[in-house]
Amino acid sequence: MNKYAHITEYLKGFLKAEVSKRGFKKVLVGLSGGLDSAVVAVIAHRVFKDELLCVKMPSQYSSQNSLIDADTLCNDFSIRAITASIEPMLSAYEELNPDMDKLRIGNFSSRMRMATIFDISARENALVLGTSNKSELMLGYGTIYGDLACAINPIGDLYKSEIYKLAKYLGVPKAIIDKAPSADLWEGQSDEDDLGYTYAKIDSALRLLVDERLSKEDILKKDIDKEMLEMLIKRVSNNSFKTEMPKIAKMV
Amino acid sequence: MNKYAHITEYLKGFLKAEVSKRGFKKVLVGLSGGLDSAVVAVIAHRVFKDELLCVKMPSQYSSQNSLIDADTLCNDFSIRAITASIEPMLSAYEELNPDMDKLRIGNFSSRMRMATIFDISARENALVLGTSNKSELMLGYGTIYGDLACAINPIGDLYKSEIYKLAKYLGVPKAIIDKAPSADLWEGQSDEDDLGYTYAKIDSALRLLVDERLSKEDILKKDIDKEMLEMLIKRVSNNSFKTEMPKIAKMV
Repeated sequence: MNKYAHITEYLKGFLKAEVSKRGFKKVLVGLSGGLDSAVVAVIAHRVFKDELLCVKMPSQYSSQNSLIDADTLCNDFSIRAITASIEPMLSAYEELNPDMDKLRIGNFSSRMRMATIFDISARENALVLGTSNKSELMLGYGTIYGDLACAINPIGDLYKSEIYKLAKYLGVPKAIIDKAPSADLWEGQSDEDDLGYTYAKIDSALRLLVDERLSKEDILKKDIDKEMLEMLIKRVSNNSFKTEMPKIAKMV
Repeated sequence: MNKYAHITEYLKGFLKAEVSKRGFKKVLVGLSGGLDSAVVAVIAHRVFKDELLCVKMPSQYSSQNSLIDADTLCNDFSIRAITASIEPMLSAYEELNPDMDKLRIGNFSSRMRMATIFDISARENALVLGTSNKSELMLGYGTIYGDLACAINPIGDLYKSEIYKLAKYLGVPKAIIDKAPSADLWEGQSDEDDLGYTYAKIDSALRLLVDERLSKEDILKKDIDKEMLEMLIKRVSNNSFKTEMPKIAKMV
């Protein structure tokens, strides 16, 4: 069996078991038009069919292409989808805070999407599926209490470079696979520009660091860029709080 | 040393160490006018003085008394505070979703407060302190990715009945100590009405269940209401996901 066929079967079983264990029948996926949410939607659709509802949550900063790509995906796979714009809340907040920079607007937008999809999950009695991949989770390239928030995340242990291959196996539209990865928090944003390196290079180093548990010295022997490795080690350490619960003062 | 003097000293040391470890000097506390946030603010003020900024985040559903009580606290202790209303975002969302019930409005409001205080934390380069007590955390009486979201929570291992005594020791204004506990998500909301029992009774049972690890049968021998105990066991089990990270499909 092809590796990605095997992964797909495993993830279908995982989703079925975890959703049922929690007493739910329906799931939601926030669809950005990007690769990760497309992969989660396609796998979830194989399990839940019309009990999957995708939610497109554009803002005034979303690119038009993202919306088109999300629509193409839903059409190709006959996936149910609704649109719930975050623009009204974002505009209301921006009017009071005209000094926000792009990063603050991006994080605030991500949290408006979280609040919106969790409200829809209450209305629909559905569970929210996560769409953060392992590369993003390790690097903290996501908004805590924003896009990192979910009930169940089927792709959190898959590197971005594996998500590409999984997407190809699943038949995700070419436009989604071919475009530059982006959090789409502002026009022209590119993950790889933000991070300074391609996911292919980043994932090679993360595998050695995280999965192989090699020391910095041993990794450098393997033709890995020193500056990139130092950036990655710093990011993994500085952002680990995003995958941990808040620290509580324990009474002893 | 008085028990609550001792707890206060312990929590001051905890806050100082944890905030400094994360490389921060400033902290934020979302001030509702209720008991829990008052206690966190007073202890944080002892450590951080003017590096503590309290944030009042009223909505159109907040009671006027809550705001007055928050102001009294800030005046009594000379605590710096600002107001950042969530009304504009909440109204914008409600206009699009006129069918929301009280619970959905409450959870959405809690998440608007989270998004607001985390945005202010980015602007101020400050850490957000949590204000959920142990009783609430055990019972899941809080909004995941809303009021449960924070960097550090100094009171998460203290039962509500302990928070009362700590508040008295700290000199929190009588109006805050004497009023009925409420999440203040709608007019007249009362925690004890929602839960059906007083925190005094709930905490007695939780101590036996959680701290003493007694079986249901042994707890019932101790003059604990059977219906209440069954409600608590169910709540603790159903809501444990709120204090756990999302479930990730692990590739093995």
